[in-house]
Amino acid sequence: MVAPLKVGIAGLGTVGAEVVRLIETQARTLSARSGRAVRVVAVTARSKAKKRRIDLRGIDWVESPLALANDPRIDCFVELMGGSGEPALSAIEAALKSGKSVVTANKALIAKHGLRLAKAAEKHGGALNYEAAVGAAIPVIKTLREGLSGTGVNRVYGILNGTCNYILTRMEQEGLSFAECLKDAQRLGYAEANPSFDVDGHDTAQKLAILASLAFGTKVAQSAVYVEGISSIAPEDLRAAEELGYRVKLLGVAVRTSKGIEQRVHPTMVPKSSSIAQVMGVTNAVTIDGEGIPPITLVGPGAGGAATASAVVADIADVARGIRAKPFGRPVDRLRPTKKAPMERHEGGYYIRLMARDLPGTIAKIATRLAKEKISLESVMQRHPDGMEAANKTSPVPVILITYATSEDAVYRALEAVQRDKVISGRPQVIRIEKN
Amino acid sequence: MVAPLKVGIAGLGTVGAEVVRLIETQARTLSARSGRAVRVVAVTARSKAKKRRIDLRGIDWVESPLALANDPRIDCFVELMGGSGEPALSAIEAALKSGKSVVTANKALIAKHGLRLAKAAEKHGGALNYEAAVGAAIPVIKTLREGLSGTGVNRVYGILNGTCNYILTRMEQEGLSFAECLKDAQRLGYAEANPSFDVDGHDTAQKLAILASLAFGTKVAQSAVYVEGISSIAPEDLRAAEELGYRVKLLGVAVRTSKGIEQRVHPTMVPKSSSIAQVMGVTNAVTIDGEGIPPITLVGPGAGGAATASAVVADIADVARGIRAKPFGRPVDRLRPTKKAPMERHEGGYYIRLMARDLPGTIAKIATRLAKEKISLESVMQRHPDGMEAANKTSPVPVILITYATSEDAVYRALEAVQRDKVISGRPQVIRIEKN
Repeated sequence: MVAPLKVGIAGLGTVGAEVVRLIETQARTLSARSGRAVRVVAVTARSKAKKRRIDLRGIDWVESPLALANDPRIDCFVELMGGSGEPALSAIEAALKSGKSVVTANKALIAKHGLRLAKAAEKHGGALNYEAAVGAAIPVIKTLREGLSGTGVNRVYGILNGTCNYILTRMEQEGLSFAECLKDAQRLGYAEANPSFDVDGHDTAQKLAILASLAFGTKVAQSAVYVEGISSIAPEDLRAAEELGYRVKLLGVAVRTSKGIEQRVHPTMVPKSSSIAQVMGVTNAVTIDGEGIPPITLVGPGAGGAATASAVVADIADVARGIRAKPFGRPVDRLRPTKKAPMERHEGGYYIRLMARDLPGTIAKIATRLAKEKISLESVMQRHPDGMEAANKTSPVPVILITYATSEDAVYRALEAVQRDKVISGRPQVIRIEKN
Repeated sequence: MVAPLKVGIAGLGTVGAEVVRLIETQARTLSARSGRAVRVVAVTARSKAKKRRIDLRGIDWVESPLALANDPRIDCFVELMGGSGEPALSAIEAALKSGKSVVTANKALIAKHGLRLAKAAEKHGGALNYEAAVGAAIPVIKTLREGLSGTGVNRVYGILNGTCNYILTRMEQEGLSFAECLKDAQRLGYAEANPSFDVDGHDTAQKLAILASLAFGTKVAQSAVYVEGISSIAPEDLRAAEELGYRVKLLGVAVRTSKGIEQRVHPTMVPKSSSIAQVMGVTNAVTIDGEGIPPITLVGPGAGGAATASAVVADIADVARGIRAKPFGRPVDRLRPTKKAPMERHEGGYYIRLMARDLPGTIAKIATRLAKEKISLESVMQRHPDGMEAANKTSPVPVILITYATSEDAVYRALEAVQRDKVISGRPQVIRIEKN
């Protein structure tokens, strides 16, 4: 009989407590599945006194994450404290350097220090598993790291932030503004008091940087991700999208182009018929376009204590089973440098919403400016908000344009010219289109 | 440097040839990802003379699958011949008994002889990987076998047969009959000349039996699966489903009930808003309901040479990487026996379509019969086919009932009573409803 895998857990919040509970309740299944018993032998957390609904009898309390990481009694250090720096970083590094395996749910840390940690893991022979860091219980890390070993990836994209998808879903379904939906999300606990990290796209960018590395064999580099959030999206954009057969989602997209790997996070129009468009509320989804095969989409809970804990325990089981995949799929020294593909060279279709004065001469002028930049239009839609036409003939009228594939700088050059023409009021709204 | 993994491939049809091609074109990625080069050293197939668009120079031709399996030069035997028996069975068994690892895409063989083969793999230390057997490139085996180690599964269900889903999608979208769509599917190569294996649900049943074993730790047993095909589905059922907010899919469902694990394959009404309802055409999808976490759905190509080869190569990479998961997630001697849960005890909602004579006395009579069996109705819909009303007042009129959850035997007792009442003509159509 193999000796049990001895686990130390740093951080006993919702996720940590649920991991302790799962390891106990699933003990028999876990040992049958991994060929080895799994036992939590020591824990640490900020407050020992805090009431937790788990039984910690028989489990040692260690005074600091670093002490736990260095504790020779444990084989596997589980980091569930969060934060992109200390004390998690030093503790994980210490654990890896002593040959232990590490399981973490910490996307910020992996996005920022993943390479350094992966190097330590490779050198000392431990695993560094972080399935829970992206898409919680959705097995996207495993799928990219192991499941698609034989297939080149052309594109990986997804809905990686439940807060943003919740807000966009409610805006679409109830015609509410961004601000109203954000307030509701905060009230329901789906958004932080300071929501910027989520709604401005940075959370998605961290996750995307990790997925891109796994998919393309490049070094994780959050700084290579172009980021735009959802706060500028208006209910009229969602209504127009609906009419045109699209939905608006905050996507993280990493795609192989002739100019390198493009990584970007921004509100995106996706065809209503695509798998990704069906994903509503706090649910997450990732689509992987492999070379020569139809897309694979993984959908599920991207957050939540139970879903995150489920992924953490699966990672622990892999350690128990003896699986040692390279943390980023390939050895760190085989990962290629990532350079930031400039967004002005991005190519794709665009949704453009303008407030036009004095139709129809205006439309002709706009079309001329676009034509000069060789931008072809798939559709032009002129909207008359209810009652406005009658009320005030001279009010600006929304005009919505959908372009065929073109380059981003062409779009912006054309729109600058339109603005110089003084035929529109306010700033144009521009949303990129992603086809499946 | 570790020695390369030496692979022997039996079967060089579309999938086999694509595997040879992938291993060559992805050689660098494969070795970076698995820490070891992968090399095809020998092959065998029915005809050596057949033209194939792959380069077999430098690869040995062996005269039989068994000889290849026993060839001491190979580490990993890849079986891509198909068929639930010989010569695949003996060859795989021989390979495993000599300590080799085996990769196969053969669902029929795994459903029928999987336990025997898994035992041999466990005893001699080789891997037995079969990701491609269910859902081709969708990593559902890996997800159930490794990714959800820490989570109990309550239900696993999915669209596992692309032929059936293609037919149902076209019937729904174009209002065509089953027979017309089947003919088209055959013309397009989506259905076999003898389509029974697909459209009668047996292909789905084999795949479901495998998934159920992985999900619930029970022995694979195709005979424990209740099976019903799609040939009785009429366009009017799909129209009614649409109106009631459902779609009809051929699902394989394995669910933990108080009476044991229920395994069933049948046409199913699923809510239009569910992930599974969005899956159209030949695409496959599997949803896993884990204990305490929202469902995880995996969607992608369930068949096709490239998608199947992608999964086969990923399995080979796992062998190269040294991953040795138990073939059915747990040791064979820990798998529990599967008993067939009787369908008459199945509980759920039902869609019932009857051809009623002489309304409205009839509806009252039907409702009385249902009430006697304590079946509550969620809705009753009476349809007048276009023009029929005017043409012939005495023609039978379709009546559609949706029940709340009840038991299958209650439904059949009630419908038998209704038939004895002679208030309907023809046989009632009954379709089970699966809620998410």
